[in-house]
Parts: sequence; C-alpha cells; structure tokens
Amino acid sequence: MSRERTWWKPSDHAVQMLCSVGRRRGRNQMSSELVGRVIVPSSDQLDAVTFNSDGLVPAIAQCSQTGQILMMAWMNAESLSMTFAEGRMVYWSRSRQELWRKGDTSGDRQFVREAFYDCDGDTLLFVVEQEGKGACHTGERSCFYRSFGDQ
Amino acid sequence: MSRERTWWKPSDHAVQMLCSVGRRRGRNQMSSELVGRVIVPSSDQLDAVTFNSDGLVPAIAQCSQTGQILMMAWMNAESLSMTFAEGRMVYWSRSRQELWRKGDTSGDRQFVREAFYDCDGDTLLFVVEQEGKGACHTGERSCFYRSFGDQ
Repeated sequence: MSRERTWWKPSDHAVQMLCSVGRRRGRNQMSSELVGRVIVPSSDQLDAVTFNSDGLVPAIAQCSQTGQILMMAWMNAESLSMTFAEGRMVYWSRSRQELWRKGDTSGDRQFVREAFYDCDGDTLLFVVEQEGKGACHTGERSCFYRSFGDQ
Repeated sequence: MSRERTWWKPSDHAVQMLCSVGRRRGRNQMSSELVGRVIVPSSDQLDAVTFNSDGLVPAIAQCSQTGQILMMAWMNAESLSMTFAEGRMVYWSRSRQELWRKGDTSGDRQFVREAFYDCDGDTLLFVVEQEGKGACHTGERSCFYRSFGDQ
C-alpha cells in the first residue's frame, strides 16, 4: 500500500544512493565537496519575513534529493542573514541561546539549494543538501522518525 | 539544472495529474470521495508532544503524492485530538483564536495519511492528501510559493 511506502520515504538503499554526498564512495573515490548556494534576497523579500515576539521565525529543512522533511528549527535575523551569505543553514538554538551553525560540531552540514517564505511570511522553507549521516542528533536521518499510531 | 526543477516541485501537469483528487475528472466521471485516516496514538506518543507556553505546537503539512510542503500552522491539544479522530487536519487559528477545520469554508480539505513527531516532540509533520485547488488562501497550491533571491 502506498501508505506504507510513500515516494518521499524511499528505501534505505535509495537514500544511501541519493543522499550520500559528502561521504567516500569507494577506496579511491573521494567524496564530492559540497558547496552552498549564496542567496541575495531583495529588501522586499526580507521585509516580508515576520519574526515572533522572541525575534524568531521557524525554518523547515527539506532534502533536495528525496523531499524528506529533515528538521524544523528556528532562526533569528542574524542567523537568517548568515544562512543567505554562507549558503549553509545557521539556526538559533533556543536551548543554548546562541547561533547554531548546523554541522560545525557533528560534521553534518546542510547546504542551501532553494529558500522560500510562506504567504504570511512567518515560516521559512529551505531545500538543502544534507551532508553526512543526517539531520538529527539521535543519528536518524530525519528528526521526524517517529509516527503516531500503529504502523 | 536540478536546482531549476527539483522532483518535489513537479510540472503543473504532474501536479494536476497527481493531486487532482477531489475534482470532477470528466463529464460523467465524478470525483473520488476522499476519506481521512483515523489515527489512535498511544499515550506514550501523546506524552511526547510538547506544547509551547501558548499551548501550541507547529504542524507541517506535506502532500502525500508530490512531497511538496503545503503549509505550516499551529495546533493545540484539542485540534490535534480532532485531527487524529477525524483524519482531517484541524488547526488552531492564532489570528482568530478559534479551531480551524481546514477546508470547512474553502472546501480545500486535507486528509491525513501519516503523522510524525520530531526528536524533541515540539514539531509535528502530517502527510496529507490535499483536496481542491490547494492549501493557501491566496489560491496557490502551497503557501511557500515565493522564493528568496533571483530565480
């Protein structure tokens, strides 16, 4: 049934094939070096972004190859600006209250491919190339690895 | 280039073919009736959900056929419970401060196929079948129809 295996949740093998960029692929074959896409937003586009009372906006990260939702975290104006300038996802860690350049510690960086803002300007969507084993600190590829109900 | 046309952003025709459920498809062919999937979460699963200080949790809606991110909105405990029980997306409208059974006014309902919670339990992901023309009040299929930078 399609409910059991939807296209955006490909087999482990497919994920490995599609998303293993950044890994070594063979004895003599080095990984390709990932490069982020620098984005220069217009002032109109920046003005459309609405931060909440804490100065934050939620940012969804979606895998550019599989469409899988990798994670959702928060950005402040500074981390958003850094994300555009570096082409790498930079969040604001609410628990640590500091800038969080994704992958600086884990090595699992996220490289920007496309960036969108929604109709209200209060949620952002980044299509990214995920480096390494995945986005989640648990070792899972996606933070959304647990489903409700019996499956 | 793949950046220009990623799989999760299919052609208009593909979207029409894949996601036109709920419409009439011909003179004598009525639309198929969509049915939501009722989910019975375990108490452990429900306990894992963390609501913010306003009693809300963000919920991402993703198209089950194309993987497109349709929207992000908020749920309180009641709307989450209704979503599980009805198999239809029910949000909490922060602007109107009321339950928002998506599609009751517009006709563009969202029927649940799968539901996930993230590692921190503070963001939900629903894979849905989108009825009608789309999720956005502007008439766009996805609320994320505007991109940053020149594309």
